[in-house]
Amino acid sequence: MADRLQIGIIGAGRIGKIHTDNIARFIPQAQLTGLADIMLTAEQEAWAKALGARLVSKEPGALLSDPEIKAIIVCSSTDTHADLTVAAARAGKHVFCEKPIDLTVPKVKAALDAVKKAGVTLQIGFNRRFDHNFARIREYTLAGEIGDVQLVKITSRDPAPPPPAYVKVSGGIFMDMMIHDFDMARFQAGSEITEVYAAGAVLVDPEIGKAGDVDTAIVTLRFASGAIGVIDNSRKAAYGYDQRVEVFGSRGVAQAENDLPNTVKLSTEKSVTAEKPLYFFLERYKQAFVDEMVSFVDSVRSNKPVAVTGEDGLANMYAALAAQKSLTEKRPVSIEEIKVQS
Amino acid sequence: MADRLQIGIIGAGRIGKIHTDNIARFIPQAQLTGLADIMLTAEQEAWAKALGARLVSKEPGALLSDPEIKAIIVCSSTDTHADLTVAAARAGKHVFCEKPIDLTVPKVKAALDAVKKAGVTLQIGFNRRFDHNFARIREYTLAGEIGDVQLVKITSRDPAPPPPAYVKVSGGIFMDMMIHDFDMARFQAGSEITEVYAAGAVLVDPEIGKAGDVDTAIVTLRFASGAIGVIDNSRKAAYGYDQRVEVFGSRGVAQAENDLPNTVKLSTEKSVTAEKPLYFFLERYKQAFVDEMVSFVDSVRSNKPVAVTGEDGLANMYAALAAQKSLTEKRPVSIEEIKVQS
Amino acid sequence: MADRLQIGIIGAGRIGKIHTDNIARFIPQAQLTGLADIMLTAEQEAWAKALGARLVSKEPGALLSDPEIKAIIVCSSTDTHADLTVAAARAGKHVFCEKPIDLTVPKVKAALDAVKKAGVTLQIGFNRRFDHNFARIREYTLAGEIGDVQLVKITSRDPAPPPPAYVKVSGGIFMDMMIHDFDMARFQAGSEITEVYAAGAVLVDPEIGKAGDVDTAIVTLRFASGAIGVIDNSRKAAYGYDQRVEVFGSRGVAQAENDLPNTVKLSTEKSVTAEKPLYFFLERYKQAFVDEMVSFVDSVRSNKPVAVTGEDGLANMYAALAAQKSLTEKRPVSIEEIKVQS
Amino acid sequence: MADRLQIGIIGAGRIGKIHTDNIARFIPQAQLTGLADIMLTAEQEAWAKALGARLVSKEPGALLSDPEIKAIIVCSSTDTHADLTVAAARAGKHVFCEKPIDLTVPKVKAALDAVKKAGVTLQIGFNRRFDHNFARIREYTLAGEIGDVQLVKITSRDPAPPPPAYVKVSGGIFMDMMIHDFDMARFQAGSEITEVYAAGAVLVDPEIGKAGDVDTAIVTLRFASGAIGVIDNSRKAAYGYDQRVEVFGSRGVAQAENDLPNTVKLSTEKSVTAEKPLYFFLERYKQAFVDEMVSFVDSVRSNKPVAVTGEDGLANMYAALAAQKSLTEKRPVSIEEIKVQS
Repeated sequence: MADRLQIGIIGAGRIGKIHTDNIARFIPQAQLTGLADIMLTAEQEAWAKALGARLVSKEPGALLSDPEIKAIIVCSSTDTHADLTVAAARAGKHVFCEKPIDLTVPKVKAALDAVKKAGVTLQIGFNRRFDHNFARIREYTLAGEIGDVQLVKITSRDPAPPPPAYVKVSGGIFMDMMIHDFDMARFQAGSEITEVYAAGAVLVDPEIGKAGDVDTAIVTLRFASGAIGVIDNSRKAAYGYDQRVEVFGSRGVAQAENDLPNTVKLSTEKSVTAEKPLYFFLERYKQAFVDEMVSFVDSVRSNKPVAVTGEDGLANMYAALAAQKSLTEKRPVSIEEIKVQS
Repeated sequence: MADRLQIGIIGAGRIGKIHTDNIARFIPQAQLTGLADIMLTAEQEAWAKALGARLVSKEPGALLSDPEIKAIIVCSSTDTHADLTVAAARAGKHVFCEKPIDLTVPKVKAALDAVKKAGVTLQIGFNRRFDHNFARIREYTLAGEIGDVQLVKITSRDPAPPPPAYVKVSGGIFMDMMIHDFDMARFQAGSEITEVYAAGAVLVDPEIGKAGDVDTAIVTLRFASGAIGVIDNSRKAAYGYDQRVEVFGSRGVAQAENDLPNTVKLSTEKSVTAEKPLYFFLERYKQAFVDEMVSFVDSVRSNKPVAVTGEDGLANMYAALAAQKSLTEKRPVSIEEIKVQS
Repeated sequence: MADRLQIGIIGAGRIGKIHTDNIARFIPQAQLTGLADIMLTAEQEAWAKALGARLVSKEPGALLSDPEIKAIIVCSSTDTHADLTVAAARAGKHVFCEKPIDLTVPKVKAALDAVKKAGVTLQIGFNRRFDHNFARIREYTLAGEIGDVQLVKITSRDPAPPPPAYVKVSGGIFMDMMIHDFDMARFQAGSEITEVYAAGAVLVDPEIGKAGDVDTAIVTLRFASGAIGVIDNSRKAAYGYDQRVEVFGSRGVAQAENDLPNTVKLSTEKSVTAEKPLYFFLERYKQAFVDEMVSFVDSVRSNKPVAVTGEDGLANMYAALAAQKSLTEKRPVSIEEIKVQS
Repeated sequence: MADRLQIGIIGAGRIGKIHTDNIARFIPQAQLTGLADIMLTAEQEAWAKALGARLVSKEPGALLSDPEIKAIIVCSSTDTHADLTVAAARAGKHVFCEKPIDLTVPKVKAALDAVKKAGVTLQIGFNRRFDHNFARIREYTLAGEIGDVQLVKITSRDPAPPPPAYVKVSGGIFMDMMIHDFDMARFQAGSEITEVYAAGAVLVDPEIGKAGDVDTAIVTLRFASGAIGVIDNSRKAAYGYDQRVEVFGSRGVAQAENDLPNTVKLSTEKSVTAEKPLYFFLERYKQAFVDEMVSFVDSVRSNKPVAVTGEDGLANMYAALAAQKSLTEKRPVSIEEIKVQS
């Protein structure tokens, strides 16, 4: 493929490895040209080269100044996302940036401005829109099968809580975890969130409470369309990663169940048992990670709008900030209020 | 209801009690007028009278000679079915006879002749045709949803084997247990069985083998329509009563799963568990017992053909005899061969 | 049964008919002694007598003054519930009162006081606690299978909206419809609701909005135990009556799916289809109506605490009033605030 | 990985492409060294080289004589399987041979002899043993969860019939299609088939009948262990590829349902619909194709027994031949009879 999109990846951590591997193995219309990580190990370097990367470096700048690299995947630490997005945009590179763009609104806005000014493409890593189940629900909605969307319900529970140390720097459950669900809610409603009300509790781990966060939350949503919604999160579901979506409309409902490792049912004198859900996001969203990248590459190569824009990233962030404020001030908080203040 | 069908029941054993109770409580278009059991206890008598029976007796003849009783339910011991059917028919009563009519073909034929001569209605107690699941499959087939029937698969497994003493007098697994499935197969195929091949084994209880029977069997069927089918039976399914039917056709397949006591799913760290099937036929076919009787009463009162005829009873018996012969002689056996010989 | 509980029923409308029929046919430990309805028709009278009622009258008082009747079922119009409960209690009768006891707190309190003073038993008709699915979830919780309850989720959607005329006198969606779910939430959480936040919308029928009500609502709950919960209601689910409950705890989750009329799955070239849920509450809660009455009769006869107390009725009412206030004032409302004011 | 197994692939048709692609992309412990196809196109050559193949040729012999290639994957046309297996074995190469080894017993035996003499490893391409569902059932059995295996049921239906021209050279439904299910049956039973009885019919396409074959079949199995089994095949299931297995034992049953493209359920006024099964074997057994090759590579590198031996291939063939004979001669046929004759 003469016109494969040459890609440079910044950050070789958990998510960086996934993107690198996916681009090298599953996306023939892209080429893994470069990889940079400020903590690059010899092992990582060998691995990247074996996958065909020409330029492997500790310097992100090396990728930005390489004329053949047309797109940059930003999966370094969160605090560098905005700056690298700006730098890449200024260098004329298209950008795929992992979520969140930043934890502060001004830096996010600055990044979006830079992207706009540079006229490059920016996609944000809200990969769940590409999940086979959730995408199918949206297709049903768009096909009119459920009529007008009236109610969106999202269950999103992790198999195990992160360490308290992580919780402290995570930005809190709404910014760190539920932000994915805010994106899913907006995606499924086909409408912007206008107001949230958050109820939270510390039920999983008191240490999370000491870190100033909650580990269980229910957030009620209002959408501009008039629809309403609700998301529930828990940092710990004993039975594994619970990721379900239900969209209810005037003509019906579409519901996605969890994915299972196999379909076998065992019936014995004691009970009938089935498998637990796929363990965690790496298993559950394995294909979604590939598909979001395919979508990004396709958007860049065909000069089409991306599936998840920088504005989506910002809107999800507003929802998370509103939820945090709602929890703290024990009242519903409008997105408008957050926008005005930030 | 002035024209309620007055019914007399012969036999107050397990199945007789069910019919009695159903008629008294659930079928307003019928009236429980009499009950007879040659071993009638005082308790049974009190119970029948409390349910409104006017005539409670140790003498079946008392019901047959009662002019107000228009229909007789025969649920006494198997060896009396044919004779009582004949006697009832001669007395001008309509008859609902529990399966089997008899264990020998000549007596069955004699009973059917007597019924024909008397011009009365006869229905046989193959209740599973009235099961909500299996009836729904047939509805789909009749509505053309699955096209032409090509393959019928029936799973029918009991939760626990009967005592070996019972096995000896039961007529064998095909006559005692699979006969229900032969009826279901003919019902679902909408066609007569023409040939069977039986594979059997003693895997549940060696005592059953000593009694000359098998406890596990797979029987392949050919239908006059050209379709084929298969039934599997086991005398013991550790997880409970397993009653499933699948009808496959040129345009699709309809499948019935087991009924469960509730729909609750419990997911824990260990597994995801659901309930086992309803325990046994009294639970699973509770409503089907009512519905077959409603159907009988309705047929008699409206002078309509019954849902399960005496000829059905005979055809099911031929299939059972052929299966037994196939098992013994280790070859496929045609129904014609059985008909000619019996 | 010498000591059958003699029962008088007041009100022969839809729900009164169900209770009458259930008592007469399914509850041998009770006896249908009387029926009263101020609008009694000849047909109703004949029907009640055929079911064995000795005393059929247009005068509720006739039942209250009958010395053999030990318990009264109040299923007349809502505005008479409280007064009849008081009158029955003063007459020394045990009372089963349909929900709601009244639409105003003072009358409810007065009724509970009268019951207390009279020392009689009072059960309120929150029948869903007796549903086979929801009862099973509670059993799992009580058995420790899901650990400590952290989150309760209830979906409760009607197949079709009531006429706007009904909506006007219904007391609103929270008092009329969600009150069942408040009861379920308290039952499943094993804890009292302390605060609610209600989001509502008019999405089904503008006439409902004109009547001053909403037809779609999501209510977030806080429980005294620290757990949180959420209920969603819609007046119209195109696919039928949607009644699901999910209780999530520290060790797992128990979820109840809808009940279906049969288990058949039809697979064709076009799709794989299954049945829609049982149509409405008469079908879905058929057995629960029997079981709540069995439970009441058993409580009275054995002098045991009832499963659903008058205090439950009051607590559910507080939740409904709080939800209404929350919706109106767009803020979370504590139950305490409602208690103090009413 | 210094000791990657260097592999040469013979045959670049549909299945050859899959193996080539899987080895190049998903199996780091193997290396795609060579590819040969007697009809090799320029496009195929470019593709293989892009995947890293060093030796791309029209001559299978070129691979066999290459000293670095240690294993050969035979996926050329069926009539060449046996000869290439012999040649590869004689050249000291380990062999993975697609099913069937040949359509005649003597050639299969000759191939197995050559392999034995050469002391190389041979695995046959019965990939379904590696399917996540079917492998899970076997794990349950081996863990004792279902007790002793008593009954094995396999449903295996294709979404659409092959062209009649293919049917003529296919070896017939038993050798071409059901041979996979014979392997599955032996795998799940953990025991050899000793006798079969085949019932077949032409219900899908009369042209298949004219070609001397059937398109619908039910085959009853007896196993050496005493267990019994049944397989049903159809060349056309309107709803897609239907691949289910059920293993019933003394302590329970394990059942695998079909895999679906997603878990979404759509409920509307009309019905509740779910997705049809994954379309055909490329979709359904995608991962199984990878896993069988991983297993082969692992067996060769670790000098361990393979999961599917040449003897398995021969045993499956005997079952297919017995089924064909049973169908023709309308009687049960023992495997011993086939063995003796062939």
